[in-house]
Amino acid sequence: MRIAFAGLGRMGAPMAANLVRAGHAVTVYNRSAGRTVELERLGAAVAATPAAAAAGAELAVTMLADDAAAERIALGDDGLLGALPAGAVHASMSTISVALSQRLAAAHAAAGQRYVAAPVFGRPEAAAAAKLWIVAGGEEGAVAACRPAFDALGQGVIVAGSEPEAANAVKLAGNFLLASTIEALAEAQTLARAWGVEPATLMAAVNALFRSPVVENYGGAIAARRFEPAGFALALGLKDVRLALAAADARAVPMPFASCLHDRFLAAVGHGLGGIDWAGIARLVAADAGLPE
Amino acid sequence: MRIAFAGLGRMGAPMAANLVRAGHAVTVYNRSAGRTVELERLGAAVAATPAAAAAGAELAVTMLADDAAAERIALGDDGLLGALPAGAVHASMSTISVALSQRLAAAHAAAGQRYVAAPVFGRPEAAAAAKLWIVAGGEEGAVAACRPAFDALGQGVIVAGSEPEAANAVKLAGNFLLASTIEALAEAQTLARAWGVEPATLMAAVNALFRSPVVENYGGAIAARRFEPAGFALALGLKDVRLALAAADARAVPMPFASCLHDRFLAAVGHGLGGIDWAGIARLVAADAGLPE
Amino acid sequence: MRIAFAGLGRMGAPMAANLVRAGHAVTVYNRSAGRTVELERLGAAVAATPAAAAAGAELAVTMLADDAAAERIALGDDGLLGALPAGAVHASMSTISVALSQRLAAAHAAAGQRYVAAPVFGRPEAAAAAKLWIVAGGEEGAVAACRPAFDALGQGVIVAGSEPEAANAVKLAGNFLLASTIEALAEAQTLARAWGVEPATLMAAVNALFRSPVVENYGGAIAARRFEPAGFALALGLKDVRLALAAADARAVPMPFASCLHDRFLAAVGHGLGGIDWAGIARLVAADAGLPE
Amino acid sequence: MRIAFAGLGRMGAPMAANLVRAGHAVTVYNRSAGRTVELERLGAAVAATPAAAAAGAELAVTMLADDAAAERIALGDDGLLGALPAGAVHASMSTISVALSQRLAAAHAAAGQRYVAAPVFGRPEAAAAAKLWIVAGGEEGAVAACRPAFDALGQGVIVAGSEPEAANAVKLAGNFLLASTIEALAEAQTLARAWGVEPATLMAAVNALFRSPVVENYGGAIAARRFEPAGFALALGLKDVRLALAAADARAVPMPFASCLHDRFLAAVGHGLGGIDWAGIARLVAADAGLPE
Repeated sequence: MRIAFAGLGRMGAPMAANLVRAGHAVTVYNRSAGRTVELERLGAAVAATPAAAAAGAELAVTMLADDAAAERIALGDDGLLGALPAGAVHASMSTISVALSQRLAAAHAAAGQRYVAAPVFGRPEAAAAAKLWIVAGGEEGAVAACRPAFDALGQGVIVAGSEPEAANAVKLAGNFLLASTIEALAEAQTLARAWGVEPATLMAAVNALFRSPVVENYGGAIAARRFEPAGFALALGLKDVRLALAAADARAVPMPFASCLHDRFLAAVGHGLGGIDWAGIARLVAADAGLPE
Repeated sequence: MRIAFAGLGRMGAPMAANLVRAGHAVTVYNRSAGRTVELERLGAAVAATPAAAAAGAELAVTMLADDAAAERIALGDDGLLGALPAGAVHASMSTISVALSQRLAAAHAAAGQRYVAAPVFGRPEAAAAAKLWIVAGGEEGAVAACRPAFDALGQGVIVAGSEPEAANAVKLAGNFLLASTIEALAEAQTLARAWGVEPATLMAAVNALFRSPVVENYGGAIAARRFEPAGFALALGLKDVRLALAAADARAVPMPFASCLHDRFLAAVGHGLGGIDWAGIARLVAADAGLPE
Repeated sequence: MRIAFAGLGRMGAPMAANLVRAGHAVTVYNRSAGRTVELERLGAAVAATPAAAAAGAELAVTMLADDAAAERIALGDDGLLGALPAGAVHASMSTISVALSQRLAAAHAAAGQRYVAAPVFGRPEAAAAAKLWIVAGGEEGAVAACRPAFDALGQGVIVAGSEPEAANAVKLAGNFLLASTIEALAEAQTLARAWGVEPATLMAAVNALFRSPVVENYGGAIAARRFEPAGFALALGLKDVRLALAAADARAVPMPFASCLHDRFLAAVGHGLGGIDWAGIARLVAADAGLPE
Repeated sequence: MRIAFAGLGRMGAPMAANLVRAGHAVTVYNRSAGRTVELERLGAAVAATPAAAAAGAELAVTMLADDAAAERIALGDDGLLGALPAGAVHASMSTISVALSQRLAAAHAAAGQRYVAAPVFGRPEAAAAAKLWIVAGGEEGAVAACRPAFDALGQGVIVAGSEPEAANAVKLAGNFLLASTIEALAEAQTLARAWGVEPATLMAAVNALFRSPVVENYGGAIAARRFEPAGFALALGLKDVRLALAAADARAVPMPFASCLHDRFLAAVGHGLGGIDWAGIARLVAADAGLPE
């Protein structure tokens, strides 16, 4: 497939590389040009604007940091919208708000283009190993058109529904579950520490019970107070909690745990922890109990 | 070993049976006599009081519903305390408060007896299959003395520390994590439903991410609105959240998620849901979002 | 003064009337024309668009339901922005977001006009009696220019600062305090009822302590379960809690009580209570305790 | 009346003095003898034990720091229970748990004595000025028997009901409202500060709205960051939040604000603030927002 790819960050760069390696004709765009060198070496073409990348493409894939970037690349000057051919698909794989996803869907539809929301679960290593889980939302044919690309990027596709934003809701619900797991583990370990139990001892019991790599990894990091370098920065975690709350608010869904998490992440940022791993909210949990962070 | 066993409820009965089958000389006591018939058939002796069961025992195991029952059996009239031989061990396997565990430890020490807190993770089926996970707290020799019994009851022993109540803290932290998982799953599924996503679709993504039988089982039950019959009654969940908060309060540990859970479980009981499975708090989560329970 | 007045709702209509009665030359605009009849009878001119009202005015006052309406009137087609003379002041007295207030300030400044945020405390009766409290934010001269109008509308002006949005933050903080008072009273009365105490008895003690008309009025309404007709609709309360949280989030301020309130108001709307008075969140507080609503 | 008075702390000492000044025959008891000197000088008799004070008394008044002290004085060795004449009344004016109040009522009834719970609102200055508000619970005749004493202590009596613990529930609900007011004011001021508004400016608006000495005093202390010396120590505030939650839990009343407060006060104690005024929780609110405490 002729694929435009915009956003060569920690996730996007290995994803674009996988598309090249799978034999697709990939044209990349990135705001800061330095990131394109490696892709060019692998065989990708490089475009100076999103529009230039999208011209003639069958599929445009975007993997961007937040709503502002996603909106600029798609709807801004020299954005995808003005250049993507009729009938071509924009697969937005960033973690963005349901609201922006709805606006993108409407804008592309008005331009005769198709839109699929396809956020992913997985960290940069999973992106590099083509082991992402992809949640896809959109009209059936449009999702099908993305399959060759998705096959090169992940280990599976979960179809959320025919409304694109359904996929964003799933992604936000998933990240909310991860954040909840972190907070719950931090509270549980703090309780254990206060009663003289080594966090590793608690985790032995917890892992026997949950048998989950997610619980094991985050529980281990919290037990070891290993929050740097950040696998996923706390400030990004705050962003995703905000997006989950916004999606919930728009449909009048009360989410008390998400509200707690919002306050916790805000406080962590207020205490200057925005750059450490999001499991680092555990430092505040301990400090509030009078224990060493 | 000569073992006294008190408490033949849904957990205790299969545990006592496993001890008999493993060749131990078991004398059982239960407040309502009917529960002893099956154990007697298997070869257990039956005692009319906890004291009668404990006389001459090397080990007394208790598996009771709550603090009140545990206190009565151990410290009440005709309780274990007055009859257990010097040096013998009381292994308290019930989910009880850290405060009661501390009092039991002190009482047994004063009587020249030994005390081990050994709460378990696992449901009645795990108890029947001798697949419990046992968390043991107490003086090293006392825990070692319990090993022959523990080997017949579970698939592993996690030593929490030399203070018995450390094991109770681990158990309460573990149940808090389970309750947190339920609430988080309920909120996540409600968010997804509000955006038109089938809960089962969300769970496909969540299970790919967490790969945990706990998440899969509770997530599946919530998705299917399958809350009866109760595997673990909501009212018992409230009891355990209370015990976790009490343990946290005693050491000045703030636990915002536990506070949320406390309010949620209280409200569920207020709405008459105390008898359904504790995953049934999901009904309130949905109702508060204006969705069918 | 020559004053344009847009927004003749329950608050705006009596405010505009007071400006007319005070001798100002008032031109009113309202989206639905019926509301202008009474003002015309009092001596106001009527304009067909916000722009027509603003042409030639020294001061434009807006009193609108929400951000969407405030934005449309000021920045939309035929809005104030295109017609207000250079140097004239737009006094925005609606309860709107800090974010919109910042945008309005920037837009008016770019057009050579001046902008004052001047939200008010007080219900329609206070508006009719010219007993509002006005919180004003903006450049000193601009606030001074509004004084003749403010004098006809309220019993006092509190200057929040030279940044207009500071006034909006004060208004949102104030409404948050009111909502917190309602929730706290509802919880306190529910606790009392659960112990057999008449809410009126509790309020006797509380009123002796607080000596506040706000506490007395809301406490009395909750005690009497008198939630209709709505003095201030629950759905509007939700709107204001959202605005407070948004203002807090923008500056990374965690507000746990506001988070609680957000969940409470969402649940109330989910249970179909959006149209009753916002003190009616007390119905959920009671229901969650298993008491008659 | 012949009155025994136990507990000469910051509240009890001026209360006992007022009883002496009103002409009652008062015998005081205090654990540390030094506190009795001033009362003796005023004309009170001094007893070496609670029992000695209670012998021959028509009324025993207790004003103690917490449940443990109240229980010891009433039910401990040489306590009131063994010495108070049949038909005499024990008026327990301390802030204690509903549970202890129920136990005291039962114990006195079994001993042929009468029991009134009569907690008070007001600080030491109000106690000295005989301006307390007294909330009384108990059998009508027993409350009536206390009137001569109450008249010398306070400015009014609010009868909570015929069950003594109803009065304790009212007291705990009232203190919960005070703590909620503090937290809400702290959050509101933090929001305002984050938007560049002086706390005193916010309070001008808030005071115009609430017109409450409670709001004005706490709001002023928070605005001025004036938390020492403590009028009411934060650690005592935690105690009272705990008692409110315990009373709520016993009747299955969810109180989300009280849960928030519990976590806040625990964290404040964890950060070493237990000795400052309870309004000092505002320091954590600010710190969590990244503002100077």
